[in-house]
Amino acid sequence: MSHPQSTFDNTSFFGETILSRRRHLIASVTLHAQLEQLKQTGRYDCFKLKWHPIYDDKSMWPVPYHLFWDSDVAKWIESACYFLQREYDANIDLAVRELVDMIRGAQQSDGYINVHYTVVEPQKRWSNLRDMHELYNAGHLIEAALAHHKHYQNNHLLDPILKYVSLIHCRFGSCHDQLHAYPGHPEIEMALFRLHTVTKSHEAYELAQYFLQERGNASGQHEMHYFDWEAQQRKENRYTRPNTYPEKDSHWYCQAHKPILEQETIEGHSVRAVYLLTAVADMIQLHHKGDKALCNPDAWMEAVSRLWTNMVNKKMYVTGGIGAIKQWEGFGCDYFLPTGTNEGGCYAETCASIGVMMLAERLLSFDLDSRYSDIMELCLYNNVMNAMSLDGKQFTYVNQLASSDTDKSIRKDWFWCACCPPNLTRLFGSLGGYVWHVQESEAEVAINIHLYTTASLSYTTASLETVSLQQTSNWPWDGHVALELSSQSQSVTIRLRLPSWSHGQFKMAPIPASDDFSIDKGYLTLHPSYTNAYRTFSITIGGFEPRYISPHPYTAQNVLGIARGPIIYCMEDVDNSWQHNHFRDVTLKKSEPISEEAKSMTNGEGYTELRTKCWLTNEDISARTAGPILDTSIVSDRLEKSAVFIPYFLRANRGGNGEMRVLLRQGED
Amino acid sequence: MSHPQSTFDNTSFFGETILSRRRHLIASVTLHAQLEQLKQTGRYDCFKLKWHPIYDDKSMWPVPYHLFWDSDVAKWIESACYFLQREYDANIDLAVRELVDMIRGAQQSDGYINVHYTVVEPQKRWSNLRDMHELYNAGHLIEAALAHHKHYQNNHLLDPILKYVSLIHCRFGSCHDQLHAYPGHPEIEMALFRLHTVTKSHEAYELAQYFLQERGNASGQHEMHYFDWEAQQRKENRYTRPNTYPEKDSHWYCQAHKPILEQETIEGHSVRAVYLLTAVADMIQLHHKGDKALCNPDAWMEAVSRLWTNMVNKKMYVTGGIGAIKQWEGFGCDYFLPTGTNEGGCYAETCASIGVMMLAERLLSFDLDSRYSDIMELCLYNNVMNAMSLDGKQFTYVNQLASSDTDKSIRKDWFWCACCPPNLTRLFGSLGGYVWHVQESEAEVAINIHLYTTASLSYTTASLETVSLQQTSNWPWDGHVALELSSQSQSVTIRLRLPSWSHGQFKMAPIPASDDFSIDKGYLTLHPSYTNAYRTFSITIGGFEPRYISPHPYTAQNVLGIARGPIIYCMEDVDNSWQHNHFRDVTLKKSEPISEEAKSMTNGEGYTELRTKCWLTNEDISARTAGPILDTSIVSDRLEKSAVFIPYFLRANRGGNGEMRVLLRQGED
Repeated sequence: MSHPQSTFDNTSFFGETILSRRRHLIASVTLHAQLEQLKQTGRYDCFKLKWHPIYDDKSMWPVPYHLFWDSDVAKWIESACYFLQREYDANIDLAVRELVDMIRGAQQSDGYINVHYTVVEPQKRWSNLRDMHELYNAGHLIEAALAHHKHYQNNHLLDPILKYVSLIHCRFGSCHDQLHAYPGHPEIEMALFRLHTVTKSHEAYELAQYFLQERGNASGQHEMHYFDWEAQQRKENRYTRPNTYPEKDSHWYCQAHKPILEQETIEGHSVRAVYLLTAVADMIQLHHKGDKALCNPDAWMEAVSRLWTNMVNKKMYVTGGIGAIKQWEGFGCDYFLPTGTNEGGCYAETCASIGVMMLAERLLSFDLDSRYSDIMELCLYNNVMNAMSLDGKQFTYVNQLASSDTDKSIRKDWFWCACCPPNLTRLFGSLGGYVWHVQESEAEVAINIHLYTTASLSYTTASLETVSLQQTSNWPWDGHVALELSSQSQSVTIRLRLPSWSHGQFKMAPIPASDDFSIDKGYLTLHPSYTNAYRTFSITIGGFEPRYISPHPYTAQNVLGIARGPIIYCMEDVDNSWQHNHFRDVTLKKSEPISEEAKSMTNGEGYTELRTKCWLTNEDISARTAGPILDTSIVSDRLEKSAVFIPYFLRANRGGNGEMRVLLRQGED
Repeated sequence: MSHPQSTFDNTSFFGETILSRRRHLIASVTLHAQLEQLKQTGRYDCFKLKWHPIYDDKSMWPVPYHLFWDSDVAKWIESACYFLQREYDANIDLAVRELVDMIRGAQQSDGYINVHYTVVEPQKRWSNLRDMHELYNAGHLIEAALAHHKHYQNNHLLDPILKYVSLIHCRFGSCHDQLHAYPGHPEIEMALFRLHTVTKSHEAYELAQYFLQERGNASGQHEMHYFDWEAQQRKENRYTRPNTYPEKDSHWYCQAHKPILEQETIEGHSVRAVYLLTAVADMIQLHHKGDKALCNPDAWMEAVSRLWTNMVNKKMYVTGGIGAIKQWEGFGCDYFLPTGTNEGGCYAETCASIGVMMLAERLLSFDLDSRYSDIMELCLYNNVMNAMSLDGKQFTYVNQLASSDTDKSIRKDWFWCACCPPNLTRLFGSLGGYVWHVQESEAEVAINIHLYTTASLSYTTASLETVSLQQTSNWPWDGHVALELSSQSQSVTIRLRLPSWSHGQFKMAPIPASDDFSIDKGYLTLHPSYTNAYRTFSITIGGFEPRYISPHPYTAQNVLGIARGPIIYCMEDVDNSWQHNHFRDVTLKKSEPISEEAKSMTNGEGYTELRTKCWLTNEDISARTAGPILDTSIVSDRLEKSAVFIPYFLRANRGGNGEMRVLLRQGED
């Protein structure tokens, strides 16, 4: 099994690609900036188990401000270890060591580790699985321990965490004296599957599988839904509920309204949904690899496939964002995808798209299909990369597609619920594991390339032979990718993703003979007959002409956007100063040609700017309206304007008034 | 002061207009069918104060199923009295008398009348003003008493109700020992202003004014918001809330988030909002008539005008429906107007549009402007009339603009919360009061005609002279309206509404001289110089050509509908059997001509059918999509089809599969 968190260090990024630049920025700036935030806010010291003034703040119920601090620290440790693996940094190393010592010191004699339930409410452990993120925090501690173990090659953090997992394993399960529960916020499941993969811990596997199988059981605990039963134990009635639950019994909020196998559509909190499905995919992957046999694997695969399809076809923004609704940070009904918070909602949380990438990576490991990797790349270059400023110090939580006066296009230093910033850093830390998968069988090694960039892969086979592959490109601005393979006796198959937006246009050099290659589910397979003949070769993928895109017509939106390769573009007021009202009165026509211009950001990062014509409608349409009805026989004045588009992920880096829009009204040709 | 409930009997409808037919249907069928429902469900006998099995049902909290029974009975009595005023009906008369006796018998010694708080929870009176509709029920009892008093010319119901009002007046107010409260569901305010108008009850005026002025006070009761204070008294915490409150402190649900004068946008439950504003308009009207001086009348007028404008320009459907969100039966953000329950929401409750009509009528009485009467007519002929089947026995509560598999285009016999059906009957009972307003001054009588139909008005002046006016038309199918005025010495001004959709096109015969008429704010004023010269004359209003309409572009919907005069049209599967998927794949083009055909429903009611061309898109657009992104360079197959449209209010009367849509996707010309 090859989780990206384990395999990433087979990959070295180099050159000046966006990915390489971001990784360098995170290592040199972001990790330090986030460490400073941890220190300033009290998180850094929280495992000392002293009282912090914020613990007195009872203004939020049931989730207090500090509830996720454990996970914030854990995710930062995880990120730090990934980057330390590439390059030593004394300050980062020191902080990791200090934090690990503090976590060790915070462990209770029975193995328990949780700041809130040790310091603030020590009598209430495991009393609110639905809301209180106890197992979520435990999951992130497991992931931190695995990253720490991998980098430091010791068990200084892993040992206490294994003890904690044993405690959890005793507390949760199907036995009479165990809680028949599962976490309100999934996360620990995928952490446990990884823990099992690394340590072969049977407890870890059993616990993760139990959580997945028990979830949504309507009569799991004393003939009641577990979350109802525990609420009753807390003496809360069904109408007492957190703000995130719009109505009573909104168990769909955390995907617990019915068993996973019975869920037809993806619902609720979007991060929880994709974390949960990633764990399901892990469980299927373990089955496929012969590691742990799963009952009814087809049903699990059908469920994850059904929910993936529902998500990407009906509940995803063109930027790879998911989740329209702020209240539950999650999905609306099918095709409900307004693009601004003042237009009905647009959440598209950073963590959620990172979760989509995790899920896609898992699915690709046993179902190689570019429909997963296309979405993985879409998320990476758009909703996810949008989440960090070019100085590496500011972040997003919500990634709206259109700004408004109440929600301008900005980024922030930090959040009270700080899940997204360290999630971004740990993703980039383990990014090498997303670029390609190596599959080794007795006969051969296959390298499936999902993401194009400039990077080299070095893989050691079971017979201790090294296979290396280098790709060099100016992706995502250009479709030419030069490849250089090196292996001794090993037979190597290479599969190259053909993005759907390339419409199958590609050129290989040297040109393969007809039996040297095949194409299946969006991947071009180069057989060993080719890779043995040519150690250096290149592919040039088409589809880099700017193109007009739109969301599905069932969204009932009549809007156009512009994409180029995997990059989704937007308009910003800093380039289009003639506009007002957040581009709400601007129309595009899909017959208008789009021109390109090479540009650089102030930090020297190159990008392709796009230009076309657009029209500014006279916004005073009072003459055309009678209350709710617009008379279509009267046509508003429209002024032709020059429109400048930049990549969405680069927005809000050059000043301006914070006005931005991805999808603009479509005018008639 | 001239509430429609008082003035309606100056008007006689005759002929075969839609309005006349509906009134006849309600008198002969609907009132009887609703009476049967009252009897079958237990409502008829509820004032006997015996236990009914449904009172044991605790499945709904806090509002039990029977909570509104008082008001259902009261609204039926009110409707019955309006129709009895025109024509005697022994069964209806008997039922009114029985019900009134039962209500009298239900009154407690202190004057209190409420079924739930007498039978089910006698110790909890006035303990939950926010949710429990105690004052709402009282308001409808007041309205029933006024209608009963008018028709029966006795105080058999009015006397006990006045005693109840005195009790309420003692309980609520600004004194130290009074509750500083107001109803969660406004209604009693407008009932009290009417009671004041009829009886000159100072208590009634004072109480209504108090409710309006106190509403939304953040520190009204012991330095707390009243609804927070009473929840604390009930020992509920802020997170314990009815399903209708999406988040804690959602006081905007019942327009109590801030004082009315400070509210910038119309929010929350739509029926509550328009009932509340109608009462505000009543209060302003009383000030203008010199009846009760109001402090700061301009501020109240600005508030009601601001909220009206926000509602009709940004939160109203093209059918006159308001309220997109099911959970709180009310408004979303500006321009949030999805047209189906599977597209993000579409509520458009019948009662809410009836409330808009009430509000418009009040505003017209002191601010004659066709922007109010255009909306009043839009609501009447579309969202409101849609709410009853042609057999007079089935009703709607929700009036969506597009059906779906989970919400087909149907009507129902009754509802557990049965507010809408008797609201429709009492509206039609008092409809004469909406057709025109008579304003008498020393110098003259002015008749402002808001609605065209076939009806006669008979008005007796202060000097006991009779002024009568008859209008004859085939409205809403045809713009020709013949008028015949009769008065002796009285000088009469007539003002005729010029609907905005007529774009000022009208012809008078005989043609008035330039100083015989003037036009202001959408009304054509015929001065006495004209009405003295011509006792019979006619106006022919233009704009009856079918026209394409659309909602505001900020709704981000690219849709077209068809209207003709005041009538909004729809497509139904019964006429367009080639369609599937609830017309979601059908596009219109606004360049296509629309033809007309005269048709009749099976009951003989004539209407104008409209026909044009439309296009059915191949719904399999998988070739065009990659997850969330649609490639606009590939154009779907489109099949040209003949499209048949019928008036929206006639939908679901001819069988079919319950598929219907008002607004269809706009194709490119």
